[in-house]
Amino acid sequence: MSGAPDGPAMGLPSTELWFTERQTPDLALSLRITRTLHTEVTPYQELMVAETASWGRALFLGGTIQLTERDEFCYHEMLVHVPMSAHPSPRRVLVIGGGDGGTVREVLRHPAVEQVDLVEIDEAVVEAGRRFFPTVSSGLDDPRVTVHVRDGIEFAAQAPEAGYDVVLVDSTDPVGPAVGLFQRPFYAAVRRAVGPGGILVAQAESPLLHAGLIAATAREMRGAFGRVSLYLGPVPTYPSGWWSYLAASDAVDVSRPRPDGAPAGTRYYSAPVHEAAFALPPVVGALMPEWQP
Amino acid sequence: MSGAPDGPAMGLPSTELWFTERQTPDLALSLRITRTLHTEVTPYQELMVAETASWGRALFLGGTIQLTERDEFCYHEMLVHVPMSAHPSPRRVLVIGGGDGGTVREVLRHPAVEQVDLVEIDEAVVEAGRRFFPTVSSGLDDPRVTVHVRDGIEFAAQAPEAGYDVVLVDSTDPVGPAVGLFQRPFYAAVRRAVGPGGILVAQAESPLLHAGLIAATAREMRGAFGRVSLYLGPVPTYPSGWWSYLAASDAVDVSRPRPDGAPAGTRYYSAPVHEAAFALPPVVGALMPEWQP
Repeated sequence: MSGAPDGPAMGLPSTELWFTERQTPDLALSLRITRTLHTEVTPYQELMVAETASWGRALFLGGTIQLTERDEFCYHEMLVHVPMSAHPSPRRVLVIGGGDGGTVREVLRHPAVEQVDLVEIDEAVVEAGRRFFPTVSSGLDDPRVTVHVRDGIEFAAQAPEAGYDVVLVDSTDPVGPAVGLFQRPFYAAVRRAVGPGGILVAQAESPLLHAGLIAATAREMRGAFGRVSLYLGPVPTYPSGWWSYLAASDAVDVSRPRPDGAPAGTRYYSAPVHEAAFALPPVVGALMPEWQP
Repeated sequence: MSGAPDGPAMGLPSTELWFTERQTPDLALSLRITRTLHTEVTPYQELMVAETASWGRALFLGGTIQLTERDEFCYHEMLVHVPMSAHPSPRRVLVIGGGDGGTVREVLRHPAVEQVDLVEIDEAVVEAGRRFFPTVSSGLDDPRVTVHVRDGIEFAAQAPEAGYDVVLVDSTDPVGPAVGLFQRPFYAAVRRAVGPGGILVAQAESPLLHAGLIAATAREMRGAFGRVSLYLGPVPTYPSGWWSYLAASDAVDVSRPRPDGAPAGTRYYSAPVHEAAFALPPVVGALMPEWQP
């Protein structure tokens, strides 16, 4: 790569290290790495932390990009602030997955919050967050937050009835331990845990690449909740760069933020962005009869 | 890749061909190719056409993905239908670049259209579109369309005053022949060509990766037009998967579609999607004082 920005002089090739995620069998995204900081095989997955050349530090789980410091705000802000700004009084929040802490950090921007339970099955993710991603895990030591290293499906099944206002599913892709997080028994447990006035939001993969999964997951949710809606936003380092979130509630119209709902300090989220995220393109709206424009 | 979907039996590795675009020095996107159909060095750029494994056929210009059949609708529909649905009577349209024909195809969905001038500097792009991408180039033989193999900057400078209602800049990235398409003298010529009631829309790269370019280009446009706005949408195979479009007009509020503006048959565009695309995240709105929410 003669002439590459940081290649050596004299036209000699530089040594480059790239992480490549095969996002589908036919599509791959690669980030240039300047240094690997940590690799580990946990009881659940392979975990790697690396310094990238221009995306900040990155966390890789099971060979996929979980987050980069450069674009994680797109994902965490949309997962969290849509339900938190729509709920009339989001005091008690359950986060399933998301051991890195990014979701909790955003939850804590809402002044109504009194209690946050983070349930992460893989303790190594929490440890990697604390050790390598201080700007992401910054909320984990907040006195309102309790970290539970447990299976989220079990935790939800045993949660007190109507014990939470908002439940956020910040899961990995639906393979391995996360499969049950996309299925109806789990959603029924969550429905019991939030009562009729609560909200569930779950990350729901790419609207271009995983349309079938989104429709199937929405139907599973629809078996437990009165109303299921979908909203969209960019996440550049996730497959296709375009991501979706499923929102379920019996009583709350999740597409409408409270007038005072938007927290301060966001970079992607705002009240107008919130409402705009529910404007589904025809090809996406076609996935469920009730999403047709 | 034992177990890969189309690998041979007996666990032997299959032969895989990948196209990799280094979208930035530190970020790369790769598509698996099943067959290259055409390669050519034109007077302006390298051109390649290939069959991908799951993205349909793809056109590569200068080593970058220009379009794939699977996701080109995201780009072409947003480039075209936002200005065409906002203008009160879009009869005469000038397309600069876009020799593949995808932009013209979308323009022709609007029944008001009487005249379309397509100005492409590289005849080889038009030929590749006609030969390899029939679903993209389908409008080029419409009697309302004239294809001009010419420099778009010169063409705009010589265009009749107020001779067009909408000008669409469907350019490659701002390197090589496309540089002038991001600069003020060109925008001044376009302003003259559309008169006070017309609209210019230009593709404007990634809001995450090219924020400085977007702000600089907007300032160049602002020197020629009374009002410049930005809107956003996904394009999965473009850098970061998230794309932007600059709209300029003296008289038309491009963010508002006419009540009867939305054409039939779109997959990404709709009137609600149109308005939603102008809801800029705070980090993007910060690029220009007038875009602040």
